This record gives sequence, C-alpha cells and structure tokens, in this order.
Amino acid sequence: MASTTHTAAALAERFGLALRGDGATAIDSVATLSGAGARQLSFLANPRYRGQLAGSAAGVVVVREADAEGLDRTLLVARDPYVAFAKIAALFDPPRVASPGVHASAVVDASAEVDPAAEVGAFACIGARARVAAGAIIGPGCIVGEDCMVGAGSHLVARVTLVRRVRLGERVLVHPGAVLGADGFGLAMDGGRWIKVPQQGGVVVGDDCEIGANTTIDRGAIEDTVLEEDVRLDNQIQIGHNVRIGAHTAMAGCVAVAGSAVIGRYCLIGGAAGIVGHIRICDRVVVQAMSLVTSSIEVPGEYSSGTPLMDARSWRRSAARFRQLDALARQVQALGKEKT
Amino acid sequence: MASTTHTAAALAERFGLALRGDGATAIDSVATLSGAGARQLSFLANPRYRGQLAGSAAGVVVVREADAEGLDRTLLVARDPYVAFAKIAALFDPPRVASPGVHASAVVDASAEVDPAAEVGAFACIGARARVAAGAIIGPGCIVGEDCMVGAGSHLVARVTLVRRVRLGERVLVHPGAVLGADGFGLAMDGGRWIKVPQQGGVVVGDDCEIGANTTIDRGAIEDTVLEEDVRLDNQIQIGHNVRIGAHTAMAGCVAVAGSAVIGRYCLIGGAAGIVGHIRICDRVVVQAMSLVTSSIEVPGEYSSGTPLMDARSWRRSAARFRQLDALARQVQALGKEKT
Amino acid sequence: MASTTHTAAALAERFGLALRGDGATAIDSVATLSGAGARQLSFLANPRYRGQLAGSAAGVVVVREADAEGLDRTLLVARDPYVAFAKIAALFDPPRVASPGVHASAVVDASAEVDPAAEVGAFACIGARARVAAGAIIGPGCIVGEDCMVGAGSHLVARVTLVRRVRLGERVLVHPGAVLGADGFGLAMDGGRWIKVPQQGGVVVGDDCEIGANTTIDRGAIEDTVLEEDVRLDNQIQIGHNVRIGAHTAMAGCVAVAGSAVIGRYCLIGGAAGIVGHIRICDRVVVQAMSLVTSSIEVPGEYSSGTPLMDARSWRRSAARFRQLDALARQVQALGKEKT
Repeated sequence: MASTTHTAAALAERFGLALRGDGATAIDSVATLSGAGARQLSFLANPRYRGQLAGSAAGVVVVREADAEGLDRTLLVARDPYVAFAKIAALFDPPRVASPGVHASAVVDASAEVDPAAEVGAFACIGARARVAAGAIIGPGCIVGEDCMVGAGSHLVARVTLVRRVRLGERVLVHPGAVLGADGFGLAMDGGRWIKVPQQGGVVVGDDCEIGANTTIDRGAIEDTVLEEDVRLDNQIQIGHNVRIGAHTAMAGCVAVAGSAVIGRYCLIGGAAGIVGHIRICDRVVVQAMSLVTSSIEVPGEYSSGTPLMDARSWRRSAARFRQLDALARQVQALGKEKT
Repeated sequence: MASTTHTAAALAERFGLALRGDGATAIDSVATLSGAGARQLSFLANPRYRGQLAGSAAGVVVVREADAEGLDRTLLVARDPYVAFAKIAALFDPPRVASPGVHASAVVDASAEVDPAAEVGAFACIGARARVAAGAIIGPGCIVGEDCMVGAGSHLVARVTLVRRVRLGERVLVHPGAVLGADGFGLAMDGGRWIKVPQQGGVVVGDDCEIGANTTIDRGAIEDTVLEEDVRLDNQIQIGHNVRIGAHTAMAGCVAVAGSAVIGRYCLIGGAAGIVGHIRICDRVVVQAMSLVTSSIEVPGEYSSGTPLMDARSWRRSAARFRQLDALARQVQALGKEKT
Repeated sequence: MASTTHTAAALAERFGLALRGDGATAIDSVATLSGAGARQLSFLANPRYRGQLAGSAAGVVVVREADAEGLDRTLLVARDPYVAFAKIAALFDPPRVASPGVHASAVVDASAEVDPAAEVGAFACIGARARVAAGAIIGPGCIVGEDCMVGAGSHLVARVTLVRRVRLGERVLVHPGAVLGADGFGLAMDGGRWIKVPQQGGVVVGDDCEIGANTTIDRGAIEDTVLEEDVRLDNQIQIGHNVRIGAHTAMAGCVAVAGSAVIGRYCLIGGAAGIVGHIRICDRVVVQAMSLVTSSIEVPGEYSSGTPLMDARSWRRSAARFRQLDALARQVQALGKEKT
C-alpha cells in the first residue's frame, strides 16, 4: 500500500536521532527484526530480542546507544527506541483525515449542527441538539444521540453509540461497539420491586482520549462521569456512573470500574482488574492484572491480589487449606505460647 | 431543559411524604447536596454525606426522620429518602414515550407485525414473523430477528440485537450493544474437530427487566434461557444458554454466568463475579465483586472468594506461601502431635 | 416450524448408529429427556440424568451401549451420544444458506468485490478493496472494512464489524457485536503524554472458527493476530494484538488474552480466565474459570488459581490471614527449628 519512502538521514533529521551508517538507505515500511527486509525499518527496545539483531535483514534499525556498540549496519540511535519507532511508523500509517460531507443515507436531526468540515458516514444518526465539530469523523453506523458533542478532529470509527449528553473533547478516538452515555446502574428497592433512579448526568471525555472496542462508559446519576485528557482505555472496559479518571491513566482490556470511583493521574490498570465503587486511587498507582481494589489507595506503587497459577491438583490442596487458614494461624499461635 | 416546576407541598402530597418548612418552595430539578441551588431538590440517604447538609443551598432536601431533627430548612421526610428521591427525580426525566410510526429507512419483513402504536427508528430491521407491541420503541439501528417478540412499552434504546426467538415482556429496557438470542456455546468434539450443537431454544425476558449496554444473553440449546420479571442486569454481562435468573435479582457489570446455572430471586451479584455452569443458587444470596461461585449455594447470605489487595512486594511473599500451604499445614499438624 | 420428519431407522443408517426397537418411529424435532414427546428424539450423555430415562415420553433416545441394557423402547446406540445428538439436531436446524444478492440499502465501495453468490444484508457497508466470497452471508448492519476478506460460506450474523485488514477463512461464523481488526492497544509514553504506536498488522482467522457475540480481536502491531482453524470463542472475549491461538482451542465467555500471548492447540480456557501478554501455553492445556495465567505453561494438564468461595465472614478471616502468610510460615519454621 505504502508508496511513501524516507531515507535514514531524513528520519534522523526529522526526529532528532543520531545516524550511524548509510544515511541514503531508503525505507518504505516498518517490520519486526526477524521479519524485516532491506527496505524496512525495525527497532530494538526489549533486550530479550537483542539476539535477533545480528540476523535481521532490516535496512535500518532504531536502537539505544548501549545496543549500538560494534554494529556495522545502518542505525538510528534514540534515547527511547520504542517512541522513535512509533513516530516513524506513523509516517507510513497516517491517521485518517475527514472527507467533509454527510453521507446520503445518514439521518441528521434538524436541530443538530454538523460542521461543514466534518465527515458523517453511511447509516449514521445525529440526534436532537447534537454538535459535530470541524474535522470530526462519524463513521458508518454511529449514533450521536441528543445533546451530545463531538470535538474537532475526533473520530468515531464505526458503530459507536453516544447515547445522551456525551461531550467528547478534541482528537478523541473511539473504536467500534463502544457505548458512551447509557444509563448508569441506579436502582432502589421499593416494596419488593426495583425502581429506576433517573440518570440525569452526562459523560465528559477530555482531549486525546482513546476508548476501545465494546467499552462502555455510563453517564452520571446527577453530575457527570469524567475522563480527563489523554486517558487511554482498551477494549471491553466498563466504567460506571460518576467515575472520574485522571489524565494520562491507561487501562488494559476488560477492567471493571464501579460507580463513583475516583482514579488518579498516570495510573496503569492491568487487564481484567476490578475497582469497587466510591473509593479513591491516588496518582501513579499500578494495579496488576485481575486484581481487585476494594478500598482507597493513598500511596503510589504497585498492587496485587489473587493467587499464583498452579496445577489443578496442587491448587485444590492449597485452596482447601485457605479455608482453614484462620484455624491454622491460631494453632501456630498456641504452639508458640506453649513454647514460652 | 426542564421547564417543569413542582412545589415542596405538591411533592409531599404526591408521594406521601411529611413536609417541614415552606411548602411553597418551588423546584425545577434535582442535584447533589453540594451542587444544589435554591430551585433544586437534593437528598440525604448515606450518613457519610450528613456533613454536607448544613452547607447545602438546596431549596428542598429529602431526609429520614432521624436526620430531620433541628434543621431549619424545607424538608421532605421519607422512610427511604433514596426511593423518594428516585420518584421525584423521575418527574424531571420522564421515560421516553413512543412516537408511533416506522422510520422511512427501516426494513420490516412482510410477515412481521408492528403495532401502529409502536415506534421503529432509523435503520432498524424487523425480521420474519417478529412482533412489536403497542407503545414499544425500537431505537435506531436495532435488529429484531425472526420469531422475536417485543412486549408493550418495551424500549430497545439503540443498536440492540435480538437474534432469534427472543421474547421480551412488557416495559423491558435494553441498552445499546446488547445481544440477546445469539447461539449458545454448544460444541462436541468429534474425531479431533469441534462440531456445533444446534441451539434450538430461545430467550424469555420477563416484565420490567433491564439489560445493560453490551450485555449478551444466549438462547437455549433445547429449552429457553429465562429471566423472570424485574431482573436488572448492568453492562457487559454474559449469560450462557439455559441459565435461569429469578425475579428481582440484580447483577453489577461484567458478571459471567455459565450455561444452565439457576439463580434465585432477590440475589445481588457483585461486579465481575463468575458463576459456573449447572449449579443452583438459592434466593437472597449476595455474591461479592469478582468472586467465583463453583458449586451450588443453598443458604441465603453473603459469599466471597479471592484475596485482599496488597502492595505487590508483600503480595508476592504471601502468594509464594500459598503454593506451599498444604505442606505448611502438615508441618503444623506434626508440631502439634510432637507436643502431645 | 419444522416440517421435516425422520424415522429412527433412517437416522441409524445415516449416522451409523445401532437401532433398537421400532425403526418406523418418526420424529420431527429434538427435546430434553424430561420435555420430549412421542415425536421427539432425546439423548442421554450425562449419567446424572439417567433417572429421567424411565419416565421420558421421547419417541427415540440416543444412548451409550452401557445405558441401553434392559430398556424396552426405541433407541439409537452411539459411542458418543452427544455427538450423535448434535448431528441429528442439525437436521432440524440447518445452517442458514446465502440468498445471493446485495440488499438495496447496502453501501458497497466501487473497489470491493462481492461474489454474485454472496448475500449482503440491509445497512451493510463493504469498504475499499474488500472481498466477499461465494456463499458468504454479510448480515444486516455489518461492516466489512477496507482490505478485509470474507471466505466462502462464512457468516457474519448481524452488526459485526471487521475494521481493517481482517481475513476470514471459509465457514467462519461471527456473532453480533463482534469487532475484529480494531487497533491493538499500543502506546508509548513520550514526555508525559501517550503517543499511539501505529497498528499495521491484520487479523487472520482460519477455516471453521466461531467468534461469539461482542467478542473483540485486535489487529497486530506489525505482524498479524492469528486464529488457526476450528478455534471456538464464546461471547465477550478480548484477544489482544499479535496473539496466536492454535487450532481446535476453545474459550468460554469473558476470557481476556493480552498481546502477543501464544496459545497451543486443543486448549480449553474456562470462563473469565486471563492470560497475560508475551507468554506461551503449550497444546492441551485446560485453564479453569477465572484463573490467571501469568507465565508460560510447558506441560499439558489442568491449571487453576484463586480461592474457593466461602461465606463472607469466614472469608474475611482467611483473607486477613493471607496477608500474614509469610510471617506465619516463618513462625512455623522457627518452631520447627527450636524442636530439633
């Protein structure tokens, strides 16, 4: 697909990297160390792949200074090869730019405002009082519900639903199947039956956020559910009503965050982790995969719960003992006392 | 948006609440204690927010009798302030009512029956032999597949898929991205390859159920998957084939229920909990977040599994010892015996 | 619905089963032992249902030789009754066959190639350079994005999204809400902000795979995400970029697999299990429900993590002791030493 070509020298200049070897080496795409050919650029960030460097046919490799020693090939030396690679790779895969205009099949409410420089795809629905800013792309099958706003340069890839009162900032990227602004899960038990607590808040998503495929973010009960800028959510994540997520926090797939939890900035939440409602997590907290956070965290650092994987037979033995753990501990205490 | 106004006296009368203070106080919306203004109503249900009461500018506050003592402001006194609040808030956010008619873009099979008092939105598909009752709303992009039935007053918000043989009762609310009636996961291994076991059952959903965004409910293998009345499912829940869920049971987000599990009435299943297949859970069971139910539960009460969250370094030490737990217990037994 | 009828003798002949009793018994559908009537066929595979056999009104029952002893009724004797039942049931529920043609509402890019023997449903979008082979069915509301390929006889049920560079083999079945080929979750931290790492790979799905409702499979960062043939994924599963899943592996609902994990052939992954990134699992591994695989598995067998379900009060005591487990173990060691 790519007809773009860049020389090693041009890339060095453009991204402020040190060039070793032949600056005229031209590349037209990127590849892994093991898969790359002479016209491809690769990178070494993870030391475990260092062994692949010698055998790689890559025309250019991005490396750290420490890994560049004694290599007789064309290199771009970077402080962070992964970041440099990401920027170079982006040259060959530029983000989609809006093709202004509304597809003939789209249904746009008379009270909606779609900027002439926005793109609205096939079978999209734009609801009452919704606004779509310049450069935004509303992909095929998307629904921008009533009182929603899509900021400049934001991109709903396809089949995204913004239900009600969802306000996206600029350059927000939302993947297919995501649902933002559905009713929060608010119920009250009244005489043996549930009654619904109206969900009158909205969802506010800051600039440069990314929302993964089939992720759901409910709108608030009274006030809003909020993602600050540059929050990155992977696929299949559930964010309950009135949650607040601090800037630059990233969550891997399948995380579940219950209502009114407040999460700090620069946190990393591992896949399938859970966070219960009404607690606070401070900045720079790392939660390991499938761990459950049941109370507030006030000290930055890394947190885990769960038990290690074992063969099932051994596991059943440990698991049976877990049930008796309190009795076991008391027995040890008693033994200790007898001793003294 | 709201132009509706209600006085404190009118609300007291309407919902059978005791009025204190100025019955003429008019409110036009609801808010949190800390966010409310003079024309807003708020409530105090959770004692931890009692401190916000004094400083709140809310025109009217709904409280319990015990919290009303010595307060010199307009109050509505309720036995359950959260329930009263829910009912009052609903006045300002009435549920959507069907605008009868079929959108010009919708595709309706000739053998389907859509009541003239139902609403069918843009890009909706109504399949063979499907029926949509009076007052039902089929939102934009929804699919009502063959042999499906949507009861009176039910509401598929948008992009909901009812695949086949799904029968919704009355006033059922289904949020975007939900998929009901997909094939149950039935496989048999035949000569080293999987063969598919046909899924000939359906899904039956009782009156007043609510199904969250991106939740999936598979249809039964032979007989039906069943939700009794007033079951409330949050987002991203997976219900396997032939599961049966008792009336008034509620599940938080991301719960996974495997095939043929039978769950009682008035259960509360915490977020991301798991329930394995072919077991029974009695009425009034509470399962904590992220717990796994691996065998039948016959006694009402609260159940948990898992381990508490710890800083990762301490956790690794405990986790390593968990592997050796059986040996440790045997060692303690031996020490105890030596003693005697 | 079914007007098809088969006699016991014809079924015995067709599937190579031994007939006992009246070969002229005609059946027109299948049912459970307890629900079946005289014109229905049922089966006994799980010994726990043996007690239902005597009272069953089923016209024909499929059983193992060992269960056939002394039964005076019409039987089909099979080595694997569940497999035989699956094949017989399929006669009454044949897979949907394409009705060739493109629905008038579908939007097909000029550069796409749709075989005349393929079916494209209402509101489907077929993107640039996409190809749809003979006998494939693209259900209503599906999106087949740019550079995607749908193999012969494959079936996207409804509202499936193939984002970019997704290549499905033959006879692949994809359920509603599934999203294949969304961006992998690739991020690099650059000066305190995330930058996106382009995701230039695709997704390759082998012949005879099945992908559940609302399951997501991301496309690779550089190379492809791969499912080998006959992989079976239930609903709400998340497969990260560059994962590779071996042939005939099956995963129950809500499993989360992180990027670059490599999973062997004939594995069975239980519901809501997690697999971290960059590890390898060998062939024929069984992972129990909600277990977390945190390092490579090199020995076939069954694996678990977690703790058993307990009443919440007992659980809290065990959980508190889990925190102190290392200290407890040291205490036991000390007691042991004092002894000697």
